[in-house]
Amino acid sequence: MCRWVGYHGAAIRPKELLYEPEHSLIAQSTASRFYENGVNGDGLGLGWYGSLETPGVYRNATPAWGDENLREICEQVESPLFLAHIRAATDTPVQGTNCHPFRYGRWIFVHNGFIEGFQHIHRELLLAVDPSLFENIEGSTDSELMFHLALTFGLLDDPLLGLERMAGFVEEIGHRHEITNPMQMTLGLSDGKSLYAVRYASGKEVNTLFVSGKTDDIRALYPENERLSHFPSNARVVVSEPLPKLPGAWHEAPASTFLVATEDASEARPFRPRLPN
Amino acid sequence: MCRWVGYHGAAIRPKELLYEPEHSLIAQSTASRFYENGVNGDGLGLGWYGSLETPGVYRNATPAWGDENLREICEQVESPLFLAHIRAATDTPVQGTNCHPFRYGRWIFVHNGFIEGFQHIHRELLLAVDPSLFENIEGSTDSELMFHLALTFGLLDDPLLGLERMAGFVEEIGHRHEITNPMQMTLGLSDGKSLYAVRYASGKEVNTLFVSGKTDDIRALYPENERLSHFPSNARVVVSEPLPKLPGAWHEAPASTFLVATEDASEARPFRPRLPN
Amino acid sequence: MCRWVGYHGAAIRPKELLYEPEHSLIAQSTASRFYENGVNGDGLGLGWYGSLETPGVYRNATPAWGDENLREICEQVESPLFLAHIRAATDTPVQGTNCHPFRYGRWIFVHNGFIEGFQHIHRELLLAVDPSLFENIEGSTDSELMFHLALTFGLLDDPLLGLERMAGFVEEIGHRHEITNPMQMTLGLSDGKSLYAVRYASGKEVNTLFVSGKTDDIRALYPENERLSHFPSNARVVVSEPLPKLPGAWHEAPASTFLVATEDASEARPFRPRLPN
Amino acid sequence: MCRWVGYHGAAIRPKELLYEPEHSLIAQSTASRFYENGVNGDGLGLGWYGSLETPGVYRNATPAWGDENLREICEQVESPLFLAHIRAATDTPVQGTNCHPFRYGRWIFVHNGFIEGFQHIHRELLLAVDPSLFENIEGSTDSELMFHLALTFGLLDDPLLGLERMAGFVEEIGHRHEITNPMQMTLGLSDGKSLYAVRYASGKEVNTLFVSGKTDDIRALYPENERLSHFPSNARVVVSEPLPKLPGAWHEAPASTFLVATEDASEARPFRPRLPN
Repeated sequence: MCRWVGYHGAAIRPKELLYEPEHSLIAQSTASRFYENGVNGDGLGLGWYGSLETPGVYRNATPAWGDENLREICEQVESPLFLAHIRAATDTPVQGTNCHPFRYGRWIFVHNGFIEGFQHIHRELLLAVDPSLFENIEGSTDSELMFHLALTFGLLDDPLLGLERMAGFVEEIGHRHEITNPMQMTLGLSDGKSLYAVRYASGKEVNTLFVSGKTDDIRALYPENERLSHFPSNARVVVSEPLPKLPGAWHEAPASTFLVATEDASEARPFRPRLPN
Repeated sequence: MCRWVGYHGAAIRPKELLYEPEHSLIAQSTASRFYENGVNGDGLGLGWYGSLETPGVYRNATPAWGDENLREICEQVESPLFLAHIRAATDTPVQGTNCHPFRYGRWIFVHNGFIEGFQHIHRELLLAVDPSLFENIEGSTDSELMFHLALTFGLLDDPLLGLERMAGFVEEIGHRHEITNPMQMTLGLSDGKSLYAVRYASGKEVNTLFVSGKTDDIRALYPENERLSHFPSNARVVVSEPLPKLPGAWHEAPASTFLVATEDASEARPFRPRLPN
Repeated sequence: MCRWVGYHGAAIRPKELLYEPEHSLIAQSTASRFYENGVNGDGLGLGWYGSLETPGVYRNATPAWGDENLREICEQVESPLFLAHIRAATDTPVQGTNCHPFRYGRWIFVHNGFIEGFQHIHRELLLAVDPSLFENIEGSTDSELMFHLALTFGLLDDPLLGLERMAGFVEEIGHRHEITNPMQMTLGLSDGKSLYAVRYASGKEVNTLFVSGKTDDIRALYPENERLSHFPSNARVVVSEPLPKLPGAWHEAPASTFLVATEDASEARPFRPRLPN
Repeated sequence: MCRWVGYHGAAIRPKELLYEPEHSLIAQSTASRFYENGVNGDGLGLGWYGSLETPGVYRNATPAWGDENLREICEQVESPLFLAHIRAATDTPVQGTNCHPFRYGRWIFVHNGFIEGFQHIHRELLLAVDPSLFENIEGSTDSELMFHLALTFGLLDDPLLGLERMAGFVEEIGHRHEITNPMQMTLGLSDGKSLYAVRYASGKEVNTLFVSGKTDDIRALYPENERLSHFPSNARVVVSEPLPKLPGAWHEAPASTFLVATEDASEARPFRPRLPN
């Protein structure tokens, strides 16, 4: 069970979300201090958009809590759009190429969840990736493969459709192998303009996904909170687990939802897996 | 709060203690699955005696649970005497030279605990190390320094005396800096012949230390336990936390105790910090 | 251009070949001190047979010259049969899962060379691997893939035939993609009983491979050499580059050769790539 | 023998100096392709000034040529003042805390060279560091210690004086231990405003140090060179080895020189080691 956070808004330093909040993403990496469900110590990554079209990606196969380089980057960099991830490995090696985010051109992609019975359908899923994308796969995770399947099925032209087809395809292959509930996922991705997120699972148990409310509304709820006073008005944060404990500040996305946050607006649409043509 | 285990007896593969027991040392590294008090993911080490006088030392600054090389060594090697350690860093860098065991000639040394206010007395303690030992200090932990202070104060000739003087000296320096309870420690060490351990703290709260009973007695308590049936009769295990949940198999060492396990016998003596001459 | 060494004979400590000779494998990792053709600093590995059927494998994605753990293992372990490798990456990530040796059951495999135009035929080669072997592939190198193709084509039953079919298959796929000389390789492999090696290339330039002569003959040539005096009489060493500079001690294997060294004898046979059925 | 580069001028991306030139710093890390004198594969670091007073520092104990994260940072970051370093270890461990630059407040510091007989005077030098600075020393190199001695002797108030006293002190201690030529060094350092450099050795053999000429003058020499056409007019580069092979573009600093480059000017002064008061 990994954890991730996505940010869209006026440029901030990633440390404001990754290090400073009580119960921050980095604090979540040593989960046992706050949680019952495990450590996220098998690697970390930050993908951020700066002044170039291509986002920067920093990944490291060590626990986030002890990574001094991550701390430095999160302190120095200012970015209006970034995704950060901490990993808990599920049967694939602890190595940089298995850390999120994964990148393709301007796109970055993070994932929390798993494909059930992945070892039984890994090969079949890999064969379905468009051969022109094959050499962009560097690691061995189900997550990276999901990204490349979505790219194969049209993500660049229509993110929602590409992701729905990916999910539909994985479920189809899974069902053929008698896997009842093949998918458990929350996804975060971006092309440098919008921040996208998905909450979905094949079965009834669905990993959580939360979206921050409007900063002004949150400020009205917590007028004495200093941190909020300098937080950008147009900020939109998507997280797998709420960061600070501010009741009313976070909205849980319903299961089977696709979220889009752009500079001006955010929108939720139903997420309906479907078979690729 | 680190964890460690020491073994003395007929040669076994370290995996029998480090990997196979339910609630094994490696399982303890992802502590949150079993514990409330934290992760031990900041490095690991194994020191083992083979056919040479000098013990082998394997150390790595990653979480033990994901270290495939440790698993291989613990599977291939057979040893009658070894110490293994998993680290939770306390304010010193996560790096190989800060991982236990520390080695000097035939000796290896592991530690669970801390020197309170170490950053205030680090320099003063370091100056007290015998200059001829100075270049053997590779890292920056309080643990490695405690070992070299004990060496300075006579560990090679009289382990108990060297360690008592080390503790007395650290307490003296600590008290001068108005640190009420300078030491919290369980120690494991060996010269390749005996396995030594100490349980001590300056204050009332003292980290745990457990010693296994005689294998035959444990077998009598658990006649149906298969693992025990092939465990050496003369085995003696010392641990900071009990490994398997076998009531009656583990004896808690009292606070302020020095333990010695040799091939034939084991002995407990009082541990009384004293000032070096 | 990687480097490797294989040993078969009475048990020795791997350090005798990896560290002690002038111009040892580890010295070769910082090649510039001795060579013109590059550094081998992208990882290392040792596979060794001990008292278990399954060999131990130690791999690390750092330069061999600075790996203290490798030094410890090579000092402590004694083994009658081992393969060691230092890596110079060719376009695949520097990570443990791309380090040699690769293992399957009792078998280990090392490789020096490359598949020309690998990125163009990687996918096609991967699809040819038997699906039952697919999940044993952890990394992304051509080397690991060659091993699994040979396994697919019968290596376990007939090592020479499996390897010839692998080479024939890779050449066939390469030629289809208009790659003139698809293969450049020296291979070392073992099942724990015999030590096998191959020297082959599709074109005229073929990486070197050397085999040691009989220890007694070498001793007769160098009666004053102390190191040789305690080297086992039945030792047989296969290397990609000669280790010490003893003229007359090393025999260069001809191109297109398959070597087998068993406890009693060693044999060379022609290596002739052929298409799998 | 390490290598380093310092930049002062209009903001550029560090990749323009570290990756893009033929014979760039990163190319120099696999030195054997261009040099005879060794590999610099024991770690790397980049210290850069952004919009904060405190510079960012990225350090990693792996070969620079394979560090994808360094490449990302050098591509994304823009900085008017930075220092980069690649390390060849001389008897101290390969670990992040031994990588340059070292930092104290706004200051960063890199070093190429060594203190002769360091293991014999390490302890004595360490004792001379001001106790208030002691806990800022994280690693075990002579380089980090030289920085903290210079800080002890007044670097913050007068960089030249602090460094001269450091060198004088090290030479004094060295001579007392019958070390004829204690120091070999080129230094680069900055406070975020000026870029400082030193070329000095106790003996006749002195490591090289080069400073770029004025960009306009270089452009006049090489009007057809595209890279130069977009290089800032006020850029000043200091390097341990010249980066591109542009005859006339680099001026070798004389031995025993202290250099200062500010926004408007650059200046060279004699460097004369002296004893601290």
